[in-house]
Amino acid sequence: MRKKDDQKTEQIIEAASQVILSNGAAALSTTQVAKKVGISQSNIYIYFKNKNDLLFHVYLAQLAVLRPIFDDALNSNLNTATLLQRYITTLYQFALNHDDRLTIIDQIKHLANSPLKNTGEDPDNDRQYARQLIMRGINDGTLRNVDPSIHLSIVFNTVRKQASIVRNSSDDISFEPVLDMIWSAISNPKTD
Amino acid sequence: MRKKDDQKTEQIIEAASQVILSNGAAALSTTQVAKKVGISQSNIYIYFKNKNDLLFHVYLAQLAVLRPIFDDALNSNLNTATLLQRYITTLYQFALNHDDRLTIIDQIKHLANSPLKNTGEDPDNDRQYARQLIMRGINDGTLRNVDPSIHLSIVFNTVRKQASIVRNSSDDISFEPVLDMIWSAISNPKTD
Repeated sequence: MRKKDDQKTEQIIEAASQVILSNGAAALSTTQVAKKVGISQSNIYIYFKNKNDLLFHVYLAQLAVLRPIFDDALNSNLNTATLLQRYITTLYQFALNHDDRLTIIDQIKHLANSPLKNTGEDPDNDRQYARQLIMRGINDGTLRNVDPSIHLSIVFNTVRKQASIVRNSSDDISFEPVLDMIWSAISNPKTD
Repeated sequence: MRKKDDQKTEQIIEAASQVILSNGAAALSTTQVAKKVGISQSNIYIYFKNKNDLLFHVYLAQLAVLRPIFDDALNSNLNTATLLQRYITTLYQFALNHDDRLTIIDQIKHLANSPLKNTGEDPDNDRQYARQLIMRGINDGTLRNVDPSIHLSIVFNTVRKQASIVRNSSDDISFEPVLDMIWSAISNPKTD
């Protein structure tokens, strides 16, 4: 068995990410990935147990970029409303610059046989900060008392849609009106 | 060439729909569809030119169910706000009972090589009423003046998420609080 090579591991993860972005996670084959890296297919298995193991590591590689950004933004004693608005704005900046990473995470999460199902990994780990903040907001009355998945859905889908509009436009579009729409949807009108 | 049989056409479309719901549209093969119907793969090509043609007809079959429901709901002289709220409630009822049809439409629309790209079909035809109403709402000041795709995203994603929560719950959950969230997000606060 050949010795593992960290740089090769990264190259394989990067190639798999590119294939997922072009063709979707369901269509990923180790043959394609090997060809892109310029190694034989059997060599992939020196680095990853199987295709699902590769997909799992592609997922973890995206999370590794996502996490520190939110750690910095949310590590403070501000009130729930301020933290939530800061979270939404940070997510928007992330979606503007790294939408591909969010797409890869979504693709792997929504596979019929997602590799996240058989690991200890919470499939919503990429949204763990958002979920925590939303639970806190529901409990302290900042947010409407509905299923937190509704809040998450509005925040994530609207932010990503707006990022996609802005990326495909040459106009200087402010995020403020969209943040106001999201906030009107999720915040508790009784305490506003 | 064997004579075409309308019932067989429907069976093939139904089988293809089932395959898309189980494995996704990207993974659809005519071999699987033929096996499900109990005919040979070459017989599929009596009914459909190729896989893309089959996918296109699966898409049209879903639209055929969707359209008359909204025709009935929206064929009236009510004001924009009432029509929009009626649209959202009708979409919610449809998502509760036919979420599979919306999933199939989404799957086919989002294929890397979507069959809708090479036909005259507007890929957003399933949302044409919503888009018309939203444009009217923006123009008459009922809705906030942002890109209509943001309104569409909030309406469709939130309605479908709530329908999925309700389908997986034994509780009697009212749609009213979620309709209020959507309305707070999209309506123009200056005219409310």
